[in-house]
Amino acid sequence: MHFTSEQHLDDGVREREFTLGEIPGTLWTPESAAPAPLILMAHNNGLPKSEPRLVARARRTAAYGYAVASIDAAGCGDRPRSATAEQARADLRRAMQAGEPADEIFESLVGPLVEGAVPEWRTALDALLALPEIAGPVGYSGWTAVGIRLAAVEPRIAAAGFFAGGYVPRAQRAEAREVTVPLLLLLQWDDEGNPRQRALDLFDAFGSKEKTLHANLGGHTGTPWFELDDGNRFFARHLR
Amino acid sequence: MHFTSEQHLDDGVREREFTLGEIPGTLWTPESAAPAPLILMAHNNGLPKSEPRLVARARRTAAYGYAVASIDAAGCGDRPRSATAEQARADLRRAMQAGEPADEIFESLVGPLVEGAVPEWRTALDALLALPEIAGPVGYSGWTAVGIRLAAVEPRIAAAGFFAGGYVPRAQRAEAREVTVPLLLLLQWDDEGNPRQRALDLFDAFGSKEKTLHANLGGHTGTPWFELDDGNRFFARHLR
Repeated sequence: MHFTSEQHLDDGVREREFTLGEIPGTLWTPESAAPAPLILMAHNNGLPKSEPRLVARARRTAAYGYAVASIDAAGCGDRPRSATAEQARADLRRAMQAGEPADEIFESLVGPLVEGAVPEWRTALDALLALPEIAGPVGYSGWTAVGIRLAAVEPRIAAAGFFAGGYVPRAQRAEAREVTVPLLLLLQWDDEGNPRQRALDLFDAFGSKEKTLHANLGGHTGTPWFELDDGNRFFARHLR
Repeated sequence: MHFTSEQHLDDGVREREFTLGEIPGTLWTPESAAPAPLILMAHNNGLPKSEPRLVARARRTAAYGYAVASIDAAGCGDRPRSATAEQARADLRRAMQAGEPADEIFESLVGPLVEGAVPEWRTALDALLALPEIAGPVGYSGWTAVGIRLAAVEPRIAAAGFFAGGYVPRAQRAEAREVTVPLLLLLQWDDEGNPRQRALDLFDAFGSKEKTLHANLGGHTGTPWFELDDGNRFFARHLR
């Protein structure tokens, strides 16, 4: 793990870019001395870790006293894209604009993205937990499909916050019952890209004994600011 | 309004019983000097204000800095019950034990209870707001059907937290669209007495632009303790 840049932000958060082999990542840590619990934060469907909404969320979460890490996993962010993925992205845009069913296209795009991303998140987790400023336990926040797979296969994930969940590949819908850690599913009631009933069905399917659903009125990007605080309190219950 | 008893509790809360004409009530206030915002707290379907879960919720909410009031409205708690209501309660118990449809019986019991209760809650609100230790704005917490009617007709209600909502009389289901204050609907995902889909439909029907749904795994009385804190933070956003 090589740190390639470092910024000290106003709110007592240190933001560092790193590379880990081919994987680019960002690590946000509180400036305090004590080792902090870690939250892995992934943006839906391969959006870059530099996306401003993810960065804002990560910085605020670090300001609460967590180490927060994000990576651009294989095929995500600015990483090279396969011709198949490029074609699927174009098909998906066209289908959604035309209001046509997009399930199969979505499956062909996101299914392989998840398969490629999860091993790299685990590699990153190994390297992050070796840093002296980071302690367990580990939480996960964001991209539902990657989080389901990670929480199902990775015993170091102690709590998970998922967002949306209307479109999740078949493999992860089936794996939802294998997720048994405490979880918070956050959804937007009128999310234009995530059918509500599917998100509710997914919530129902999770194997966790402790699971909470938060839903707010509005579209995909309309999550109210207080949900960030609620998410941090959720993690405080399970990672402290 | 006549105070008939007073207790000072360990957590800095003063608990007073009062009567207001025929209406018995309890008022919990923080011992601090500043006038506090008021939360009206009603238990579902006429259960008494002395019910331990309501009392625990009221005390903890007062310890957060709110004045909290509950009354036994007409037909509720230990107030005299009509022969019709007694018959409906017996029928309801029998139908629910037998797993038979209970909608019509429920309607005949709870519809009139709501009609009778809401004017008395408004009378109590007038008297409570005249006390020097209570200030507006006013929140409402608990029994969904009474809360819908109150929030629809009473402009002094600034925010509302509702619980369950699977069984709500027809009149209040129709009035839900007239509720426009910020609201938090709290439901138990496996509530044995409240069909989930109806609660979700009710959430959808509310006219409020700012509405949040919290759902947790488990049965009717299994609401996790952290929802009380979440509720208080909800009121803090709207009553402070």
